[in-house]
Amino acid sequence: MSELTVRAEKLDAADELAAVRGEFVLDEVVYLDGNSLGALPAAVPGRVDDVVRRQWGSLRIRSWDESGWWTAPERIGDRIAPLVGAAAGQIVVGDSTSVNVFKALVGAVRLARLARDGRDEIVVDATTFPTDGYIAESAARLTGCTLRPVTPGQVPGVLSDRTAAVLLNHVDYRTGRLHDLPSLTAAVHAVGAVSVWDLCHSAGALPVGLDRHGVDLAVGCTYKYLNGGPGSPAYLYVRRDLQDRFDSPLPGWNSHAEPFGMRPDYEPAPGALRGRVGTPDILSMLALEAALDVWDGVPIEAVRAKSLALTDFFLECVEEYVPAGLVESLTPVAHEERGSQVALRCADAGDVMKRLIERGVVGDFRHPDVLRFGFTPLYVSFADVERAARVLGQTLGS
Amino acid sequence: MSELTVRAEKLDAADELAAVRGEFVLDEVVYLDGNSLGALPAAVPGRVDDVVRRQWGSLRIRSWDESGWWTAPERIGDRIAPLVGAAAGQIVVGDSTSVNVFKALVGAVRLARLARDGRDEIVVDATTFPTDGYIAESAARLTGCTLRPVTPGQVPGVLSDRTAAVLLNHVDYRTGRLHDLPSLTAAVHAVGAVSVWDLCHSAGALPVGLDRHGVDLAVGCTYKYLNGGPGSPAYLYVRRDLQDRFDSPLPGWNSHAEPFGMRPDYEPAPGALRGRVGTPDILSMLALEAALDVWDGVPIEAVRAKSLALTDFFLECVEEYVPAGLVESLTPVAHEERGSQVALRCADAGDVMKRLIERGVVGDFRHPDVLRFGFTPLYVSFADVERAARVLGQTLGS
Repeated sequence: MSELTVRAEKLDAADELAAVRGEFVLDEVVYLDGNSLGALPAAVPGRVDDVVRRQWGSLRIRSWDESGWWTAPERIGDRIAPLVGAAAGQIVVGDSTSVNVFKALVGAVRLARLARDGRDEIVVDATTFPTDGYIAESAARLTGCTLRPVTPGQVPGVLSDRTAAVLLNHVDYRTGRLHDLPSLTAAVHAVGAVSVWDLCHSAGALPVGLDRHGVDLAVGCTYKYLNGGPGSPAYLYVRRDLQDRFDSPLPGWNSHAEPFGMRPDYEPAPGALRGRVGTPDILSMLALEAALDVWDGVPIEAVRAKSLALTDFFLECVEEYVPAGLVESLTPVAHEERGSQVALRCADAGDVMKRLIERGVVGDFRHPDVLRFGFTPLYVSFADVERAARVLGQTLGS
Repeated sequence: MSELTVRAEKLDAADELAAVRGEFVLDEVVYLDGNSLGALPAAVPGRVDDVVRRQWGSLRIRSWDESGWWTAPERIGDRIAPLVGAAAGQIVVGDSTSVNVFKALVGAVRLARLARDGRDEIVVDATTFPTDGYIAESAARLTGCTLRPVTPGQVPGVLSDRTAAVLLNHVDYRTGRLHDLPSLTAAVHAVGAVSVWDLCHSAGALPVGLDRHGVDLAVGCTYKYLNGGPGSPAYLYVRRDLQDRFDSPLPGWNSHAEPFGMRPDYEPAPGALRGRVGTPDILSMLALEAALDVWDGVPIEAVRAKSLALTDFFLECVEEYVPAGLVESLTPVAHEERGSQVALRCADAGDVMKRLIERGVVGDFRHPDVLRFGFTPLYVSFADVERAARVLGQTLGS
């Protein structure tokens, strides 16, 4: 037994989240792609079967009331809220992340202009997951704004009284860099602009503190660290004091004050509900609700502590097992700048990832030269980490 | 046995679609709310369980390729295509109807302006399901258009060279009136405007003929006559020759020509794919795919013939069983103006529907005074129809 294997054993023995792993369906694979698609929580299949057979198959239309389908978007939003530091009543679940980015950005521009007309710039993280940039461009075009793509570090320098909205990622999807949400939000507010944060790569992996840091609007997906399943619905956070001014570009009937009044004139619902649009996709949404059960009694601070311990240990194991010079970490060493993944630059990364997967270590490849490993603290063990680094070393050394 | 009971038996015996009923999970209830939420096809629970346990739980991230998740939106679109008279490659599934109305309407205005700049009116069916009107208002606001809500009959009279786009419902959700898609589309084209049809209440109930009638853009939900399940994803049709000019207001990464290139610049995919937005909700989408199996070998013309026979027979039974003057049909008598539902105006309709449901006849109530009965030809029998009218007569007569 190597020293690192022994260390892994000790770390797993001391892991206060170790028992949560039992709530997931896992196998002999080391699954480090939970930042793309979370593993299946064991409670989900039974719940989905009940939704399909009993709620749909037997109760049919009555389930909109009797099975709580109609209120699922806000009910499940309230389950996500504590994980991102939000009080209840500020999050609704539904639609894809892209669609929510659109609602949030157009809504943000409108909020900013309520306070001061003439604001005509949207600042966006140039290193963002591409969909955010594409949607930001569309939002800019439809609201008569100019799009300014800059790196997050450049954001404070380009803010001005022309800035309407700023769209930023909490964690960079490629490098795993964690951006400074409190100070960037404060900088956005200092010029009177509205902040929109994309939490796809941070929610469920680390404390976000939406309320505490005064974030205006936020969106995120639920199929990564929240384990909601493939394409499970995303969510939209609208801070409570902004809700009565939030003016959605997608005012579907589900966001109406009286949705069954079937009135030809639109009157937005109070509260977070005005972030809803059309009929919610119930199967995906209730699978997500079941998946969120794994969080009962799990403090997000404990998740963060384990996440950092996992990525620290992975970097240490890589240092030990991988011959020098073959990989270079793109992920910051400083804890305050690190999300819950490690990105390694590596020659022939696409081919290397294929070989890793063949050997039972699943991460993913990001064009052109990045091996990306995500560490979901709820089910990744230190033994997994040691094995992944060891197999990587063997693969690159052979 | 009454004469109508005997007639129902004979009609059921001669029904060439009678066997399809066996492919649904049904019980002793007469379910006439399939125009709100279709009944559960028997193939769905097993398929969904496989998607959850094997595709997600075991294959995990590999399923995006190996289980065909990535291509589901266009693959399932091609399954819907023949039901609405479209050749393959013109429909993608995903998002809610409301979101698709938004894509289609903004896209329609842009298409119309490509041909002639300055068009600044969107004409919308004033009697539409409300969400279409709300979204049309938002699309008008964001594209600098004026919204003109008129009844479908008034549409030809208000069209002009200022008209950019016209949003119409194929079948009115409240009255069940079928609008004349071919002639209204031709009138829209005569002024150089772009037509958007909402097929929510016609797809799966009658032939639509999108290609044949030169419709430009169309949207529809899949949880009514297509039985896709609660909140199953909607679809967008973009006629083939318009696809390379279709300019979506929601250009998410799923509609990129090279989605995994992660390029900061947006380049739309060729074909119908550019109607996609974000990550598709796989559980809801693959439940829909399984639900569509019931259509194998079922010609939509046979469905239409049975639909008309069912609604004719229902009107006849109502005439026989319901004391004169207690209900008034809002649904046109002429076949060419009738969808697959019957709407009866009735005093205390909300209370009457509650009592019908207690007696095992499920329709729905539309504010303020409408009893709405939907007839899904795939699983509603003539015996169901006779019983529903008989129970209605007993309820109103008591």
